[in-house]
Amino acid sequence: MNMINNKVSPSLGDCMFRPRAVALIGASADPAKNNSRPQRYLKEAGFEGKIVPINPGRTEIMGDTCYPDLDSVPFDIDHAFIMVPAAKIEDVIEQCGRKRVPVVTIFTAGFAELGEEGLALQRRIVEKARAANVRILGPNCIGLINVQGKLPLTANAAVQEEKLLPGNVSVVSQSGSMLGSILTRAAARGIGFSKMVSIGNEADLSVGEVVSMMAQDKDTEVILMFLETIRDPVSLARAAREAFAVGKVVIAYKLGRSALGRRVAASHTGAMVGADELAQAFFRANGIMRVETMEGLIELPRLVQGHRPPRSNRVGVMTATGGAAAMIVDRLGVFGDVVPEPPQEFRDKLAADGIEISDSPLIDLPMGTSGGGRYSRILTELLASDHCDAVVSVMGSSARSNPQMICDRVLQAKRGGKPLAVFLAPQADEGLRILQEAGIAAFRTPESCADAIHAYLNWHAPTDEVPQDGAALEKARRIAAETEVWDERKASALFEALGVPVAETHVVTADSEPLTPAFEKSAVKCLSPDILHKSDAGLVALGVAPEEVDGVTKDILAKARAAFPKARLEGVLVQKMEKGLAEVILGYRRDPEVGPVVVLGMGGVTAELRPSISVRLAPVDVATAREMISEVPELRKVSGFRNLPKGDLDALAEAISRFSMIAAVGGGITEAEINPLLIREENNGVVAVDGLVAR
Amino acid sequence: MNMINNKVSPSLGDCMFRPRAVALIGASADPAKNNSRPQRYLKEAGFEGKIVPINPGRTEIMGDTCYPDLDSVPFDIDHAFIMVPAAKIEDVIEQCGRKRVPVVTIFTAGFAELGEEGLALQRRIVEKARAANVRILGPNCIGLINVQGKLPLTANAAVQEEKLLPGNVSVVSQSGSMLGSILTRAAARGIGFSKMVSIGNEADLSVGEVVSMMAQDKDTEVILMFLETIRDPVSLARAAREAFAVGKVVIAYKLGRSALGRRVAASHTGAMVGADELAQAFFRANGIMRVETMEGLIELPRLVQGHRPPRSNRVGVMTATGGAAAMIVDRLGVFGDVVPEPPQEFRDKLAADGIEISDSPLIDLPMGTSGGGRYSRILTELLASDHCDAVVSVMGSSARSNPQMICDRVLQAKRGGKPLAVFLAPQADEGLRILQEAGIAAFRTPESCADAIHAYLNWHAPTDEVPQDGAALEKARRIAAETEVWDERKASALFEALGVPVAETHVVTADSEPLTPAFEKSAVKCLSPDILHKSDAGLVALGVAPEEVDGVTKDILAKARAAFPKARLEGVLVQKMEKGLAEVILGYRRDPEVGPVVVLGMGGVTAELRPSISVRLAPVDVATAREMISEVPELRKVSGFRNLPKGDLDALAEAISRFSMIAAVGGGITEAEINPLLIREENNGVVAVDGLVAR
Repeated sequence: MNMINNKVSPSLGDCMFRPRAVALIGASADPAKNNSRPQRYLKEAGFEGKIVPINPGRTEIMGDTCYPDLDSVPFDIDHAFIMVPAAKIEDVIEQCGRKRVPVVTIFTAGFAELGEEGLALQRRIVEKARAANVRILGPNCIGLINVQGKLPLTANAAVQEEKLLPGNVSVVSQSGSMLGSILTRAAARGIGFSKMVSIGNEADLSVGEVVSMMAQDKDTEVILMFLETIRDPVSLARAAREAFAVGKVVIAYKLGRSALGRRVAASHTGAMVGADELAQAFFRANGIMRVETMEGLIELPRLVQGHRPPRSNRVGVMTATGGAAAMIVDRLGVFGDVVPEPPQEFRDKLAADGIEISDSPLIDLPMGTSGGGRYSRILTELLASDHCDAVVSVMGSSARSNPQMICDRVLQAKRGGKPLAVFLAPQADEGLRILQEAGIAAFRTPESCADAIHAYLNWHAPTDEVPQDGAALEKARRIAAETEVWDERKASALFEALGVPVAETHVVTADSEPLTPAFEKSAVKCLSPDILHKSDAGLVALGVAPEEVDGVTKDILAKARAAFPKARLEGVLVQKMEKGLAEVILGYRRDPEVGPVVVLGMGGVTAELRPSISVRLAPVDVATAREMISEVPELRKVSGFRNLPKGDLDALAEAISRFSMIAAVGGGITEAEINPLLIREENNGVVAVDGLVAR
Repeated sequence: MNMINNKVSPSLGDCMFRPRAVALIGASADPAKNNSRPQRYLKEAGFEGKIVPINPGRTEIMGDTCYPDLDSVPFDIDHAFIMVPAAKIEDVIEQCGRKRVPVVTIFTAGFAELGEEGLALQRRIVEKARAANVRILGPNCIGLINVQGKLPLTANAAVQEEKLLPGNVSVVSQSGSMLGSILTRAAARGIGFSKMVSIGNEADLSVGEVVSMMAQDKDTEVILMFLETIRDPVSLARAAREAFAVGKVVIAYKLGRSALGRRVAASHTGAMVGADELAQAFFRANGIMRVETMEGLIELPRLVQGHRPPRSNRVGVMTATGGAAAMIVDRLGVFGDVVPEPPQEFRDKLAADGIEISDSPLIDLPMGTSGGGRYSRILTELLASDHCDAVVSVMGSSARSNPQMICDRVLQAKRGGKPLAVFLAPQADEGLRILQEAGIAAFRTPESCADAIHAYLNWHAPTDEVPQDGAALEKARRIAAETEVWDERKASALFEALGVPVAETHVVTADSEPLTPAFEKSAVKCLSPDILHKSDAGLVALGVAPEEVDGVTKDILAKARAAFPKARLEGVLVQKMEKGLAEVILGYRRDPEVGPVVVLGMGGVTAELRPSISVRLAPVDVATAREMISEVPELRKVSGFRNLPKGDLDALAEAISRFSMIAAVGGGITEAEINPLLIREENNGVVAVDGLVAR
């Protein structure tokens, strides 16, 4: 509220998507130039606000008064679209500051995407903008569209080729060109959008901030993200949770599933891209649905709009054309989704209407038995039954030769509370149109259909705040604060403070009394923050008998002094030798892309050859830790498999949760690892025998 | 040659695809009936042979003379299309026999696909047909099409909706409805076919026999198979190799990648479907390319037509729109395919023309730098360069806004000897058309494009005949012939005869002299074909010292007699205890779907929890055995990983090859297993310590 002139200043979202006046800085009168497009598109779209071309060389363009610069504009500008060369942009930002333009979209390229120099220029521009209270979309961004607001503020040619169809799906993309591809492909299917935003280099306004605006946008029900990387996980997580809370669905297509893909995405965006498991963990923790096919991206919104995450991953599939349906069922099986047999009571209900179906997972009506309302009757039951969380209906040649049949079979069915996907096996454009108009998700390929169903079945509500042991955290924070150099002893102390059991250990220094530990066998390890690979250097002795400990200790100290004269030598650790049924590795990392993560993995060499891990955002509660344990197949070996001795997996789950609290410790910790953590027999707990912490 | 009337009797293929006269048995005059379709379609297509409706109730249908039965037809019939009810078919087959009709297509359903009873009827019909020298296509088959021959001999409605476009791709499908889907989808892309065959229940004519006809068909270059199962691996393998030998490409889409999919495929076809790894091994061994997306199935032919298997799995990718191309590269990475960096000399060549490209795997031209012939120049180099085996060109918005650019960029490029795939990111129907007419494979989704490229990159020439050790085989065959009951001793003898080292063993019977073996330690095992799980029954003793062997032997015999009074007790095996660096399992199986296969897998419990196996058709040569070893990641542990002791992998490869010769032994062996086979240190060989053979 501005008390002086008593007018409410518009929100950032309003200025971006519903500006009262738009300045086109660097507008061109030459229709051949890309710089002329935004103005032309705005006029063709019937934009109702003021269109203000800025170009020192002209007084008028396309009938609009043209100003030499922003300072000469006699009224407020809500949004400026900047097309001048990179070198001139700093000056333009200053003008925007003077003019109090709240947000600018920078179409100009030539910044971070070109490397160091461009990055430096980009940083300077962002600083200037911050100082001047100007928010930046881009640079290197193709612009944005607000269909309902008749605002195609972009140079993307797709806008002029396609009549902009209004819809309740909004898109934010890190690839400008993909916006056009999505727009034109959706248009061909009669699917429209509300907001479309090219985020460009994301120098200031982040994907998260834009998603948050979409979460608050009354015209948006589903939010699509095309991501090459995640630059601001905190704001994206907040925005995704905000959208989920108001019943909207956030869907991500993210590159970087393979190392090769990550390398390409990185070279394309200049951004750091981490292992895909981390992105997966991020999406899952924040209630974001992930899709992996391009068509799925376009068809999925109608499948999931208005729905909440499923209770399980079971899907009912019915058809009158077995071959085509089997293609989808087969793929769902590969994904690990479940197509359950129709339960007896379900079949009884149908039998009561004289409809016999087999107990095969796929409900496949033999030729000539799908008429007479039977198909829609079964479909209605599937949509109502508790035995599945989503439904797929597969139509064969009739979907093409007789589209009316789609109405009789699918549209007649009573829509229940669960998603319904229809796959049309033949080329059936009319059938697709009928379904599209009825608001039913229709798929042209079995792969995109299975992908979309899988995306829904694997959608989870955002994780709850993890309750933490304040006292333990307090203690851990104190240790982190007091620690200058992290050695094994300090690391162990931290883990112990958080509540992870660690092997009993004595610290022996050169001048302490000879020690005869009460351990049956001891591990004696040199303690120095400066010496790595202590075993290779012969500074670790295992299975040492009590009476030998003193001698071995002196030995190791002497060896260390001789071999590493410059190293800080703090003594040796005399640690109780521990045994377990299995060993795992607990890892913690503050990932540049998704933030704090905890990793559970098998220990030992074989695991290096064939990694077996489970990842979650940290911290995790005990229930989530149990999920992680269940995702490492090798651990079934200590969970009662073939009457082998059971390990204490309760203690393991507790330890994972405790270890993951490092995320809240702070103190600049970027990495931590317990390797190995030994799993003892049931009721005997777990114990950490080695670990490290790094800043 | 028939010497009597001196006319050449036409081949089976001619009668099927180029019949001079076709009988439509059960033809209907009612256009609403499916039975009326084939005649109508034939007339509309302008079929030039005689059309002969058979229907006792009519004398004429659609202007063609109608006969009451085959016997009344005054001329030869090359091919009969049968539409009468299942119950009448036996009689019709007899008529065909009398009339010397060489081949019939049975459209009628109600046979094996309905279970036992139907299967019995199907068997009777096949017997009758064999006796009468009539070949059967089907039953439960939708018919066949020969586009060039103007022969739509089918009731498939797709035929009437689509003008049949001629092409050089032929299709055989186990799903009748899929034929229509493939036909209509291809037609929408302007893609035509030559032969299309619905194989139905495959009661007589097999997929292999049809593929063989297509291999010999002058109008066919690429053969597509849509498979739910493999019923006759021998004929299919022969046909695929025949096609490969004449430079044609055989492509398979096969259901059953997941257990769920296998179950559904089975319930749909009544056929046995085995693990997908086996099908994969079958395709690979026989030079069959495998595709996994429906669109890939339709687009792949143009990509690979006329090409031979690649030297490696490297693909060059170029684009002027990074985001879209990254979708394909990312997926190729997930598949394990390689997108190599352009080598220096490649970049130098282009630099000489003033074209600078980075060393990123993806050649991504920045905005505004792809004009002036640069794009096609780079593409030409890629198509010529040795550093990749296939090329993908990704086009962005221009493919839509300015399709002419496709000509300038892609069509201008000099086609080299390798496959070229083009992916169009936006909706770009005109662009697809241009590429289709130029004979260039064009893809509408990144997934189908990556799938097709992957299919090509993983295509292998058929394996060569494996040379076998005749003497060893002779010995093994003798053992198999002499063996009535397979016990552990006989199994070991068989493996030894084939050349697999087995642990030194003595057989001790109740009445043999007390034995004191020269082994440091022995394993003493009860020898009986009737007692399973000997260890659980306490009939196996491990680590027995020489002087204890006699006592333990008597013990075990006594225990066995007491616990299994009815069992055949042949004595005990006293076997030298062996040690190794690692243990593997060698498995052999005569699979109902693909025939003899050999499996290499890790031994031990963990492997059960997370199987790690490699499969090939048996027998395999040593080179193939080495490939198998490289496909089991855990075995890297004994191949010099981290300076761990190396295992004798040469001996392992030799043993795998020798073991796989079981495929040639015969004697009704259906399964065999060595578990475990111990791998000793380098130059110390491998040794089998336990195994079984089953009929």
